[in-house]
Amino acid sequence: MVYLFSEEFEVRDYECDIQGIVNNANYQHYMEHARHCLIKSVGLDFKNLHDNGIDVVVSKIEIAYKKSLTSGDRFVCRTNVKKEGIRYVFYQDIYRMSDNALCTKGRVETVALVDGKLGVSEVIEQALFDGKLLTE
Amino acid sequence: MVYLFSEEFEVRDYECDIQGIVNNANYQHYMEHARHCLIKSVGLDFKNLHDNGIDVVVSKIEIAYKKSLTSGDRFVCRTNVKKEGIRYVFYQDIYRMSDNALCTKGRVETVALVDGKLGVSEVIEQALFDGKLLTE
Amino acid sequence: MVYLFSEEFEVRDYECDIQGIVNNANYQHYMEHARHCLIKSVGLDFKNLHDNGIDVVVSKIEIAYKKSLTSGDRFVCRTNVKKEGIRYVFYQDIYRMSDNALCTKGRVETVALVDGKLGVSEVIEQALFDGKLLTE
Amino acid sequence: MVYLFSEEFEVRDYECDIQGIVNNANYQHYMEHARHCLIKSVGLDFKNLHDNGIDVVVSKIEIAYKKSLTSGDRFVCRTNVKKEGIRYVFYQDIYRMSDNALCTKGRVETVALVDGKLGVSEVIEQALFDGKLLTE
Repeated sequence: MVYLFSEEFEVRDYECDIQGIVNNANYQHYMEHARHCLIKSVGLDFKNLHDNGIDVVVSKIEIAYKKSLTSGDRFVCRTNVKKEGIRYVFYQDIYRMSDNALCTKGRVETVALVDGKLGVSEVIEQALFDGKLLTE
Repeated sequence: MVYLFSEEFEVRDYECDIQGIVNNANYQHYMEHARHCLIKSVGLDFKNLHDNGIDVVVSKIEIAYKKSLTSGDRFVCRTNVKKEGIRYVFYQDIYRMSDNALCTKGRVETVALVDGKLGVSEVIEQALFDGKLLTE
Repeated sequence: MVYLFSEEFEVRDYECDIQGIVNNANYQHYMEHARHCLIKSVGLDFKNLHDNGIDVVVSKIEIAYKKSLTSGDRFVCRTNVKKEGIRYVFYQDIYRMSDNALCTKGRVETVALVDGKLGVSEVIEQALFDGKLLTE
Repeated sequence: MVYLFSEEFEVRDYECDIQGIVNNANYQHYMEHARHCLIKSVGLDFKNLHDNGIDVVVSKIEIAYKKSLTSGDRFVCRTNVKKEGIRYVFYQDIYRMSDNALCTKGRVETVALVDGKLGVSEVIEQALFDGKLLTE
């Protein structure tokens, strides 16, 4: 897969649980942060959007866990975004940096709520197209 | 669906994010806690299992987000478990208690690692069958 | 100490870290949730207050960690509140329920921001006095 | 204060709560991560220590909250460590990077548990002295 955006992270010990590995829910946090960095790269801001009545919310998530990250690991979340109907679908894979091993493979469907209603946000459309993250 | 196990929760305000709703990752926390309560109901303990070299880890998760939980909501996570090959698959749906609205619909594939290797744990098998959570 | 309010909890495994015990930051979560339950008991709601321009924020926290909570522990957070100047100071101690052992001893100073400015909220004052949580 | 160690961070949106600011408990996470980075800078590793029967645990924490961090803020946690009796006391202050404003001022007392008992770990002593983080 060709990725359009990458964000690097380092495991923080508080993200690991009793099993000594990163707790599954934290991968969602990593992926969310990577998406917010991606939209910021094209001039959009999650909090500003919210303050302007536009909320992009996750409607569906799928994550395949391949390898566990653990204390000290550095990793990168690589992301792609596609428009499928009115949904923005993010393909987000996490790779351990020491050996480029694929750790998780994710697909995140999101929809835009404009003033609380399912809709299309022109602001978001424009920014993603102008930023070359979406193409016709 | 017939559910075999239910665990009740209440949204805690720190689980909500800027959008004023429960952050998506927290649903995984709720579902994890419900699974751990379920196995405890048949005499299994996540930490004890780990201390004895048995780790049940999530290999795949799918969550459809239907309605958002928010501050003050009470909800219940209803769970079913099925054996599919060597996997234990948990079907976990979250309902808001005020109106029984379906909030999330989840499917969580897990595998057992025995001393770090993919395997079958007799202890787990036995407990789930004895507890009538799995049937032939 | 005489406590005015108690809230019971159970450790969730995801709250434990690599050391197998509840991560220190989670005690702040427990204490926050207990405070929000306390104010709810006198008719106040954290989110509603925020939506009405009133934010009670923590200005100082002190926690002495005596004993660690771990997987499976049930515990209770017992709380007192006093008015000291313009501050509401919460005294919040956490006890393990199995043996009533004191786990943490906390003091949490909070101040009210009304429309972003340090102030006194009549709504809060009234509710705390009417609910007998504060006395002259 | 002269600081011996600095670690930079960026607020992640999931760390913010309903009030739109970083939830108080997350500052403890930031400070913990900064401490673990500090000890790593002198060759110590939190997980390795734990696996070798050495746990440094927090016995007391005090945090004064001066200014709130919010979505998009970059910040730095500056740390000092002193030995006071058998305790390692970390002085950890968080500054917003845009204007160097002091956001939180913290003091974290820690003790070493060696095989579960309060003690002194030679490994830690040596590393902190060799790394010039502690002086006679």
